[in-house]
Amino acid sequence: MLDLYSQISSVPIGYNHPALMKLVQQPQNASTFINRPALGILPPENFVEKLQESLLSVAPKGMSQLITMACGSCSNENAFKTIFMWYRNKERGRTGFSKEELETCMVNQAPGCPDYSILSFMGAFHGRTMGCLATTHSKAIHKIDIPSFDWPIAPFPRLKYPLEEFVKENQQEEARCLEEVEDLIVKYRKKKRTVAGIIVEPIQSEGGDNHASDDFFRKLRDISRKVEDLIVKYRKKKRTVAGIIVEPIQSEGGDNHASDDFFRKLRDISRKHGCAFLVDEVQTGGGCTGKFWAHEHWGLDDPADVMTFSKKMMTGGFFHREELRPNAPYRIFNTWLGDPCKNLLLAEVINVIKREDLLKNATHAGKALLTGLLDLQARYPQFISRVRGRGTFCSFDAPDEPTRNKLISIARSKGVVLGGCGDKSIRFRPTLVFRDHHAHLFLNIFSDILADFK
Amino acid sequence: MLDLYSQISSVPIGYNHPALMKLVQQPQNASTFINRPALGILPPENFVEKLQESLLSVAPKGMSQLITMACGSCSNENAFKTIFMWYRNKERGRTGFSKEELETCMVNQAPGCPDYSILSFMGAFHGRTMGCLATTHSKAIHKIDIPSFDWPIAPFPRLKYPLEEFVKENQQEEARCLEEVEDLIVKYRKKKRTVAGIIVEPIQSEGGDNHASDDFFRKLRDISRKVEDLIVKYRKKKRTVAGIIVEPIQSEGGDNHASDDFFRKLRDISRKHGCAFLVDEVQTGGGCTGKFWAHEHWGLDDPADVMTFSKKMMTGGFFHREELRPNAPYRIFNTWLGDPCKNLLLAEVINVIKREDLLKNATHAGKALLTGLLDLQARYPQFISRVRGRGTFCSFDAPDEPTRNKLISIARSKGVVLGGCGDKSIRFRPTLVFRDHHAHLFLNIFSDILADFK
Repeated sequence: MLDLYSQISSVPIGYNHPALMKLVQQPQNASTFINRPALGILPPENFVEKLQESLLSVAPKGMSQLITMACGSCSNENAFKTIFMWYRNKERGRTGFSKEELETCMVNQAPGCPDYSILSFMGAFHGRTMGCLATTHSKAIHKIDIPSFDWPIAPFPRLKYPLEEFVKENQQEEARCLEEVEDLIVKYRKKKRTVAGIIVEPIQSEGGDNHASDDFFRKLRDISRKVEDLIVKYRKKKRTVAGIIVEPIQSEGGDNHASDDFFRKLRDISRKHGCAFLVDEVQTGGGCTGKFWAHEHWGLDDPADVMTFSKKMMTGGFFHREELRPNAPYRIFNTWLGDPCKNLLLAEVINVIKREDLLKNATHAGKALLTGLLDLQARYPQFISRVRGRGTFCSFDAPDEPTRNKLISIARSKGVVLGGCGDKSIRFRPTLVFRDHHAHLFLNIFSDILADFK
Repeated sequence: MLDLYSQISSVPIGYNHPALMKLVQQPQNASTFINRPALGILPPENFVEKLQESLLSVAPKGMSQLITMACGSCSNENAFKTIFMWYRNKERGRTGFSKEELETCMVNQAPGCPDYSILSFMGAFHGRTMGCLATTHSKAIHKIDIPSFDWPIAPFPRLKYPLEEFVKENQQEEARCLEEVEDLIVKYRKKKRTVAGIIVEPIQSEGGDNHASDDFFRKLRDISRKVEDLIVKYRKKKRTVAGIIVEPIQSEGGDNHASDDFFRKLRDISRKHGCAFLVDEVQTGGGCTGKFWAHEHWGLDDPADVMTFSKKMMTGGFFHREELRPNAPYRIFNTWLGDPCKNLLLAEVINVIKREDLLKNATHAGKALLTGLLDLQARYPQFISRVRGRGTFCSFDAPDEPTRNKLISIARSKGVVLGGCGDKSIRFRPTLVFRDHHAHLFLNIFSDILADFK
């Protein structure tokens, strides 16, 4: 079995790694695996030390603050909350919570629960809990039937491949998306609520049950569609964008890449408009792109305000800049706040990554894989297009969904586990111990599959 | 150290239990602790068997379906989604998703994302992710600054103690709350949107920038408060209640109990109006009330449609009736969907609970604790009131918050860990191996504390 999907990209250094097998059987570690603490109130004595060995040793630039969480969705949910609190505190200035805020928040109303939003991108996947789901736009089946927030959604670039042939088109496409981001921020924040409309009662109930004629109501019904449109417009106009969330590579949505320049400019827009910039590295983080975090490719000293992780990191959580620290205890909190036994494993995983130079390996093996895929694309353009990748985080498009699914199924029958994403893409998500010879093994098997494919 | 809080009620059978220490060190279990699968697509070979030994062996009545999750918040979030999908399918009938639903859901709009709600109770705590937080109403600091959903909130009974002295008053209080629940369901579901108001443009922008006089706008500003009120009313009227969520005992909100009869009637109301009934047993479940699930005290054959758990169960998750099964794959899904290593531990925990008859112990030791607390209440009525409890799930009220916090702090300095909840309550959340002699040990220490308290 050659697993190139690794439990939806969540196994860092392969199965049964001897270093982890040893660790879990050491008697001094047993307690960590069976006595799970409430980390927010009673962290174990050596917890900070353990975090320094694990997560803090790979803290992204400028983000010294860390919260662990049980999974990726909880990480994004709590990152949103951190952003909302920070934004509201900026607006509020030095004053404390008002009585009205304290009262209205208990019944889910403004101003206590303000109409803030997180701007996200079409095609994005940030998780499936209700806050996350409002920023997820990869597949309808994830979202249908679930109430949501009316938050702004910008287009994500759809690059044309091969990149070197479409330089100008792709630049224009990225510029168009960035312009839309900026427009949405301004539109959602600046327009006054009172410009949007005025609402009157057809039956003035509180004012004495003043009725209007039946004809009035018939007309009312006629314009109900217009009313509907206006309400939608109205609601759209008041969702101040507190933050922007983006994946360095849109993964579930079909492995959609954008240039490093796109992300640098997006970062600039967030800074210009005072929105927090949240980079979701749940799938891209942990080394598979050849850097520990995919955003390191952008080469920024100030790459983000918040960065979430999970999957290969074995625990969920997020890093953030000190400025976004909550101003009171228990604002970002839950019972477990992660799990020290996962940090214990992660510390060893990071040791292995460093000791075995697995980031360099991801670059090298990824190049072998990508080169081979480009070769297959040249030989089988009817089956393979838009080959793309960074490190081992590679993918290509099949001509359509049925063909994609059939290719995955045949590969599975030959002992190769692949994953789909988007409408018709196949994605590669091997572990960090995927080597050049694994790439060649796969390419040989897949070449045979394509040769026989009907 | 006498820990009566047990990591916010999340340690089932005490620290370092020999059965768990043995389990984690057995070589054949090592793989389960280090190779975490994506359970939704690649469950381990023996996973169903392991679930039968653990969670399915304690499945609540009528709820044969099970999903595991990483934590309590994810459990409630996904329980909400299961309810919304079920409710929408009931409305939709046998037809599939419409094109409009599939398109609108991608941009967070109705009809794809319908305006459904979950009815919750004032004082409730159901978690802190954005969906859960819309049903949490225990403390302002949990909610302030976070955007929310406009969902209905009913009052939860505030019973007077001692119960035997206030039978009639408490019955009336419960009847009032139930009536409000039913009113809210009817109000949020039945009233037509078009009755609420009509919205017109003060500047008809799309229609040609038709302006009105400045005087018109001055008047507009004058009535802006009224407009605001109407908007709030308008929005309130269209959030169809798809489900009701309730804790068998409101825990974070101050250990608020209601009678078994209250819950039986609430269950009836949910059935009558076709709303799903979701019982949140994250804190009450796992045996501490003397039954494995607190709702078993209600004596119903059909206690709930969905029941969520976490904490003492070591993994999050939810049981539900077969009728609520999603009608397509990947609708309730995430990468990990829980963690088999937690199920492995839980199977052993359940063995220990059965072997050592720890439910009976919780009843017995709880009685020793409650009797002792009633005695202290009689001796120190100035410090202790409203003593209440079920099994070891006991609590009392201090006269005010500073006194409560001081009592907790003094107890801590004498080696006793207690927890607060609500404004001024102290809650007991010992593990299931809390025995009569631990109760007496605590009562002696606390009696001394009260005798010296100033």
